Amino acid sequence: MTEKAFQECYPEELSHCYGCGINNTRGYQLKSYWEGAHSVARFLPQSYHTAIPGFVYGGLIASLIDCHGTGTASGAAYRAEGREPGSEPTLRFVTGSLQVDFLAPTPMGMELRLVGDAVEIKPRKVVVEIELFAGETLCARGRVIAVRMPESMAPA
Amino acid sequence: MTEKAFQECYPEELSHCYGCGINNTRGYQLKSYWEGAHSVARFLPQSYHTAIPGFVYGGLIASLIDCHGTGTASGAAYRAEGREPGSEPTLRFVTGSLQVDFLAPTPMGMELRLVGDAVEIKPRKVVVEIELFAGETLCARGRVIAVRMPESMAPA
Repeated sequence: MTEKAFQECYPEELSHCYGCGINNTRGYQLKSYWEGAHSVARFLPQSYHTAIPGFVYGGLIASLIDCHGTGTASGAAYRAEGREPGSEPTLRFVTGSLQVDFLAPTPMGMELRLVGDAVEIKPRKVVVEIELFAGETLCARGRVIAVRMPESMAPA
Repeated sequence: MTEKAFQECYPEELSHCYGCGINNTRGYQLKSYWEGAHSVARFLPQSYHTAIPGFVYGGLIASLIDCHGTGTASGAAYRAEGREPGSEPTLRFVTGSLQVDFLAPTPMGMELRLVGDAVEIKPRKVVVEIELFAGETLCARGRVIAVRMPESMAPA
């Protein structure tokens, strides 16, 4: 496990994401780390993140997969270039496409664990496959096509 | 436009969804209605639903597509059976699979409009295609495979 999460290496002005921005006090503040070749994030849903009572809301699961995907894309892109996360030029990714298959109802009251693999790493595009577990149960499988943040999205 | 939203016709005990449950005071409370052959929902993101500053968080967009998808599935299933939404037996759907393609950055500060089409309606499965607009700009396209809620998820 690295000392800092991928998301903690984003530039200050790009750290306001509702899912993972360390400067978004209303958001989920998801944090992703390397654990060997995989990226891992953990998240405990709040009591109101319900779908059907007793089960976690699928939109939250999609959100966690989304941010773990773009975070892993950033971490993998830096690693592929042999650079320290956060070093310039910034490798910040946004989501081009998100696919989530819900395999089993996700129980409330348990920490969720997301395990990611960057299966394709190109300069402007990283594909990340993610499995989401509650305990030992594989509850969802996701695929994120992350693309380098376009210049048009850069804060002025 | 019907008088009640699809989600307002869900049974009380199945109305706690973070994305669309009328009994979830912390959630988004998305509401979907027929407008002719299409289902439509409207949502104004809050200031903290940010991705990169100035743009809407993709996880929120995925969440809205998810709930508009399952809501449309319910509405379409009732319509296909010629029954009033909310009549017994309940036609409540959950998400089996969610696909979102982000076509353009979604600007903050504008009401979003989701337009859905139920392209396949079977007793246990409804496929819904959704387009999400900010003004006239098509920002995202989604596809939800909604499945009838399994008995195992029913509240005791």
